Amino acid sequence: MYTPTLTRPLFLVFCQVLHEEWARYSAFYKYQPIDLVRKYFGEKIGLYFAWLGVYTQLLIPASIVGIIVFGYGVATMNTDIPSQEMCDDGRNFTMCPLCDGACDFWRLSTACGTARASHLFDNPATVFFAIFMSLWAVLFLEHWKRRQISLSFSWDLTGIEEDEVSNHSQLFLCFLPLPTCCSSIQAAIEKLTWKDRLPGYCINISSILFMFGLTFSAVFGVIIYRITVSALMAMSPDPETKSNVRVTVTATAVIINLVVILILDEIYGAVALWLTELEIPKTETNFEERLILKAFLLKFMNAYAPIFYVAFFKGRRASVLHYCAPGGCLIELCIQLSIIMLGKQLIQNNIFEIAIPKLKKLVRELKDKGVAEMEREEERPPQQWNLDYALAPFEGLTPEYMEMIIQFGFVSLFVASFPLAPVFALLNNVIEIRLDAKKFVTELRRPVAIRAKDIGIWYNILSGMGKFSVIINAFVISFTSDFIPRLVYQYMFSHTGTMHGFIDHTLSYFNVSNFKPGTAPQNSEHGDIAICRYKDYREPPWSLDAYTFSKQYWCVLAARLAFVILFQNLVMFLSLVVAWVIPDVPKTIVEQLKREKKLLVDVFLQEEKEKFQLIQSLFSKDTTLHSSGNVLNPDML
Amino acid sequence: MYTPTLTRPLFLVFCQVLHEEWARYSAFYKYQPIDLVRKYFGEKIGLYFAWLGVYTQLLIPASIVGIIVFGYGVATMNTDIPSQEMCDDGRNFTMCPLCDGACDFWRLSTACGTARASHLFDNPATVFFAIFMSLWAVLFLEHWKRRQISLSFSWDLTGIEEDEVSNHSQLFLCFLPLPTCCSSIQAAIEKLTWKDRLPGYCINISSILFMFGLTFSAVFGVIIYRITVSALMAMSPDPETKSNVRVTVTATAVIINLVVILILDEIYGAVALWLTELEIPKTETNFEERLILKAFLLKFMNAYAPIFYVAFFKGRRASVLHYCAPGGCLIELCIQLSIIMLGKQLIQNNIFEIAIPKLKKLVRELKDKGVAEMEREEERPPQQWNLDYALAPFEGLTPEYMEMIIQFGFVSLFVASFPLAPVFALLNNVIEIRLDAKKFVTELRRPVAIRAKDIGIWYNILSGMGKFSVIINAFVISFTSDFIPRLVYQYMFSHTGTMHGFIDHTLSYFNVSNFKPGTAPQNSEHGDIAICRYKDYREPPWSLDAYTFSKQYWCVLAARLAFVILFQNLVMFLSLVVAWVIPDVPKTIVEQLKREKKLLVDVFLQEEKEKFQLIQSLFSKDTTLHSSGNVLNPDML
Repeated sequence: MYTPTLTRPLFLVFCQVLHEEWARYSAFYKYQPIDLVRKYFGEKIGLYFAWLGVYTQLLIPASIVGIIVFGYGVATMNTDIPSQEMCDDGRNFTMCPLCDGACDFWRLSTACGTARASHLFDNPATVFFAIFMSLWAVLFLEHWKRRQISLSFSWDLTGIEEDEVSNHSQLFLCFLPLPTCCSSIQAAIEKLTWKDRLPGYCINISSILFMFGLTFSAVFGVIIYRITVSALMAMSPDPETKSNVRVTVTATAVIINLVVILILDEIYGAVALWLTELEIPKTETNFEERLILKAFLLKFMNAYAPIFYVAFFKGRRASVLHYCAPGGCLIELCIQLSIIMLGKQLIQNNIFEIAIPKLKKLVRELKDKGVAEMEREEERPPQQWNLDYALAPFEGLTPEYMEMIIQFGFVSLFVASFPLAPVFALLNNVIEIRLDAKKFVTELRRPVAIRAKDIGIWYNILSGMGKFSVIINAFVISFTSDFIPRLVYQYMFSHTGTMHGFIDHTLSYFNVSNFKPGTAPQNSEHGDIAICRYKDYREPPWSLDAYTFSKQYWCVLAARLAFVILFQNLVMFLSLVVAWVIPDVPKTIVEQLKREKKLLVDVFLQEEKEKFQLIQSLFSKDTTLHSSGNVLNPDML
Repeated sequence: MYTPTLTRPLFLVFCQVLHEEWARYSAFYKYQPIDLVRKYFGEKIGLYFAWLGVYTQLLIPASIVGIIVFGYGVATMNTDIPSQEMCDDGRNFTMCPLCDGACDFWRLSTACGTARASHLFDNPATVFFAIFMSLWAVLFLEHWKRRQISLSFSWDLTGIEEDEVSNHSQLFLCFLPLPTCCSSIQAAIEKLTWKDRLPGYCINISSILFMFGLTFSAVFGVIIYRITVSALMAMSPDPETKSNVRVTVTATAVIINLVVILILDEIYGAVALWLTELEIPKTETNFEERLILKAFLLKFMNAYAPIFYVAFFKGRRASVLHYCAPGGCLIELCIQLSIIMLGKQLIQNNIFEIAIPKLKKLVRELKDKGVAEMEREEERPPQQWNLDYALAPFEGLTPEYMEMIIQFGFVSLFVASFPLAPVFALLNNVIEIRLDAKKFVTELRRPVAIRAKDIGIWYNILSGMGKFSVIINAFVISFTSDFIPRLVYQYMFSHTGTMHGFIDHTLSYFNVSNFKPGTAPQNSEHGDIAICRYKDYREPPWSLDAYTFSKQYWCVLAARLAFVILFQNLVMFLSLVVAWVIPDVPKTIVEQLKREKKLLVDVFLQEEKEKFQLIQSLFSKDTTLHSSGNVLNPDML
């Protein structure tokens, strides 16, 4: 039964119960009273909280497995042969300088720390975890489908059609009195042809491309910043500054990235809204979908561009511009991911969702005080509606969903490089549910209840991200991590069948006499060095094709690519199996639907029967009247 | 409106019309009268012919593109540099012998013919065609989905539920009088637990594995046959026999393959039926689905195992056992495909679908004659039902669908190696439709009409094959064809940027003194040879790691794998786009459904109104009776 309007007292009771049982941090371990949420806020918001609940619940197993995988990394850190070899001072690997002129030769053993740290995330368990998380994403979507169907059944949403013709654009275009305006605008929009819409689409596409360009230039700007600062710091005479170059530069660069992301995020939200208005979509649903798609595209690019850069472009060429830490690029990717993910969540949760609304409220209250003082003479106690009006208006669920979807990206897309992502997501979401609940119950005006039969385009976005995550994880494991080179070394090049000698194998030789004029280290502390090493698979200087890619390079590349094919197809196959094994509609619902159908037929039959009986009784009356009623006036019939 | 039973005259008229307008070869260019087919044979058969029609129709564009691609091959045959180089007698490539002892060295130019022929199928247009056909498969499925929805709407099938509880197994188990049997068997089946079913499943799995083994051993047997015969023929003193070795062996081997496939096909059909009966499925639908899945798995393996062998295992190692013709393995794959596809279609169409039924009919008639002669005394003219009874019984649609699905496999799975497959499929299907129509109208007893809302599990099988075809085509192009080695040569190794020198590049060197004792050619016609060549990327004898894979090998392998990833993801992405652009439900149907819903609501309201009026009129009568009828007996009411 649908209850669109609630009587005042019941509504207050609901609000009270929600406030006590749901919108409190201390209730974090409890199931959410979804039915009550739906009764009080409407189906759309009810579905959001149900979805958030399912997502958070499913993050629990993912977090547990993530912690186990991380634990495996910690446990095997000391037995990992490559990092032992790297830390071994006895092996005298003199590395080539990382920049022209200013930088000096360096010992590989100085990078011991990062090598050990990167083993935490770069170990065979990660591969298993990546497969697990891809299947987890499929499982999550299937589980949500079932939950959604159950909800839409118990909330009686099965018959809803999305053919509201309410027009969104009128809100922005209407200057006429509303009823006239509505119909005239509606007619005008219906008449818009392909040609009328073309300029809008053109502006759209070019703006989106421009925004993409902006994002990329922000990423590029940070790279430039890194180079400049590291060059400056390397040239500084202070030895302490010099030794901290890498840490300082990486940390500041990531923080700059984070700030840029947060600022652009706000800008992109506004741009997406403006662009969608330009398109003049026909219906409200249409408007919302287009807005969401645009905002998603822009914000996704914004949040992930620097991460993609670190994952796939950094470390591909041996220059300081793109040089990763000696432990592999995975550790940098991991730092980048954790800072951006945590930073985004903390800042958006704390500042944007708590501090700014509080501030706004304060400002509003201060303003109202002035007005109130003028009106104080009337001395009436403030009415509830006045108090409610003082709350902030409800601005739609899009920001809430968007935040969660971007987080889902951190959990699914790059999980191979950061197994703790689900843990952080879980911690965030446990708070997020109650934070959102608090906000909806106490800080916003109660929104108009909107019916919705599903979460709409968000489901498609989630499913698209799940599919995308398979290929991204395959590439992260095979190209960013050292998993494949290690395997190849162990089974193809190692003489003993163990990992001993791996580090030596991955380093190529460089003849110092081949330095271009002016690029050799100017004043080296390492004395006279003839040969230095660098991380790449290239022919040694004494080979015929010196410095071209060696056979090992192509062999490792082939293995990496083969792994991508294997991983992608295996995971896709397993996902199909999982989706096939879990039926979309729960069995109980199927049975209930059947029973309902039968009931409906019965009711129909009953109705027909009643009608028939009525007619019969009328006729029998008729005939009795006729037979016995000669006394009556025939006009009466 | 559904018309389950037809009055006798109408039924005869339908039959007449179908016979004249549909079940004739001369009507091949006409659209099928699907509505009539459905009225006469029921929805299930109607859907089959509708599906066959859509498939055949969509084969037309595929055939046209296939012919163009083949034409491109023909047109560019003479300008193809690698085959020119191969045919050039001036380039003195002395190839190593293809078998131990008996075989002699040979000149590469003797393989000129196959090299030129293989260019017909192995050219850049094939890559385009493979992408095109993958998208075509998606398009076909989407198109069929729309057609199915249109049909189910116009045939009023939207409300059908598949919950018939008719039990198939009773047909095989029942010895009691039918009604008792039915309920008791039904109850017994419902009671079967997991433990009771376990042996059945075990037998199932082991039998299927055994059948797979059988298929593989058949393929292996043919390989053994090839080796034995080619060795025998190579040793024969007759020079003519010797020169025809390859052609004779390949042709006879493929024909043996074909015969084995046809025989095993019949056996597997029976085995699948037997295995499904062992499982005792609960409902008829369930039974059919399981039977189809098993039969499909077995027949698919059977038809494609030799083709998979040629595509992916042959030519991977340089021994006579797996050595492909010098023009690449693609030409052999093409021969294999065309012979099996054409042979299967011709033999199954002509012998199994025309000759055998005719023969059966003849046998039945001869038998009946004996009976008839004994009964001739009665001298009654034969009744229509007697004549109809003389026809063969209807045995379900499974064989018809199966034939088409296996054909769809030839069209989609290996299309990269045989662009003419759609043309042959189209020619076959144009005949097949009329042949099936003739069979259904004139040669089989009219089947009991069965309702069905879709083509059931066949759709899933089709869609699975479409997905599978993407990865298979990617592998065929990159591993079986010479497309990638050519690209790699042109852009990485060629000094001039052209294809000149490609053949030299693909041949490795072998020092004759490295022959193991007894394996060198015993009496060579080529005089004193120190170095011979073989098709592989290996280090030359004068290298440090003689005869190990060379850098080129790994480089080409990496390029092949990269192409697989690129191809697969590109096609998957395009398929998603195609499926997203084409809505599942045609617009007209959506509008009609909306209108119907509105009508339904109107009818409801009307009914309620009528009922209300009836009640009102009754009451008004009541009151009039009361007010005016004091003269009447109150008991009457």
